[in-house]
Amino acid sequence: MRIGELARRTGVSVPTIKYYTREGLLPVGERTGPNQVQYAESHVRRLKLIRALIEVGGLSIAAAGEVLAEIDSPGRTVHGMLGTAQTAVSRAVAEPGADGKWADAEAEVAELVRRQGWVAKPENPGWRTLVQIVAAYRDLGQGELLGLLDPYAAAAGELAAAELAVIGHVPSTDGKIEGAVLGTVLGDAAMGALRRIAQEDASRKMQEQPHSA
Amino acid sequence: MRIGELARRTGVSVPTIKYYTREGLLPVGERTGPNQVQYAESHVRRLKLIRALIEVGGLSIAAAGEVLAEIDSPGRTVHGMLGTAQTAVSRAVAEPGADGKWADAEAEVAELVRRQGWVAKPENPGWRTLVQIVAAYRDLGQGELLGLLDPYAAAAGELAAAELAVIGHVPSTDGKIEGAVLGTVLGDAAMGALRRIAQEDASRKMQEQPHSA
Repeated sequence: MRIGELARRTGVSVPTIKYYTREGLLPVGERTGPNQVQYAESHVRRLKLIRALIEVGGLSIAAAGEVLAEIDSPGRTVHGMLGTAQTAVSRAVAEPGADGKWADAEAEVAELVRRQGWVAKPENPGWRTLVQIVAAYRDLGQGELLGLLDPYAAAAGELAAAELAVIGHVPSTDGKIEGAVLGTVLGDAAMGALRRIAQEDASRKMQEQPHSA
Repeated sequence: MRIGELARRTGVSVPTIKYYTREGLLPVGERTGPNQVQYAESHVRRLKLIRALIEVGGLSIAAAGEVLAEIDSPGRTVHGMLGTAQTAVSRAVAEPGADGKWADAEAEVAELVRRQGWVAKPENPGWRTLVQIVAAYRDLGQGELLGLLDPYAAAAGELAAAELAVIGHVPSTDGKIEGAVLGTVLGDAAMGALRRIAQEDASRKMQEQPHSA
């Protein structure tokens, strides 16, 4: 199909398709004449995946490029794919300082991970974020909020097991790899969105109670 | 205290303090001489809050400004504060199209919300994101991942109730308002970070099973 047809089928504009090609996210089409380039069904599918990662999942062009390169890599595994997708979806967080505040927060996070029985490398992108959050809660006198981290962690553990079980049931390796990416990137967006709706509902119910402020 | 002392106490550089003041995030100090401006303890606390929202929570300057304006508003309530914080932490997502794909996704989300017994306004920032996610999963033939939305929703519901209970126990109104902001903005970051660690652990455990790929 010509680029116009590809645009129509995917809802992505021709200039955007050209931009994704220049940035290496979308493979170039097959040149069949001086002014003619042909695109295949695989381009339709890849464009839908790019849209999902960028427009729905919120990845940057660079982060989406890293994920797609791993999808295309011959040595890819589901475990490696999860790691790449996790890094892509995690915002870079500043290195914590070296003072006592950080050491305390670091110890609290290590204790939390131990309580869940988790084994995780210190390079895991979640680790540093958690240390920053614990330090910020303590610094702002909101230590009560730290009590939420254990229920968050328990929920995250159950959901991670459910996610891997679902991905395990996807028939093809291609499907598993793509499922790992979408489950991580769009799963994060889904959890955030569901928290928005659940919080509105819980807050409204609390307001309706006669004795609340 | 002078601006240098404020920078030392908070770890925020003098140019960044001046930038936050120009952008209206930090109230101006008290001018006590031609080249002297004095800052109070309230500035230390506000700067720590700004750092937490921007550096740890990932809010833009504009989004942090909206949250801080609501914190400072005389008519603020905990319920209203939660709404403002939710909007600030939610990325703008494109309006879904009008074709059948979106109508189906919209109906699936409405059914999911109904199953949880939730009441939420269609303006809730989570709603549109969920419609986009459901449409993307269907479009990419990853309908199996939709099975994760109910466990995500159940977890989100339990966590929202726990969050409001914790905020309800914070003694002062100032503390409750700030807790609502931090619980929403940093709570999202915490859940994402814990998902990273839980996913690494679950993926590793699955790899170690003798019969897995």
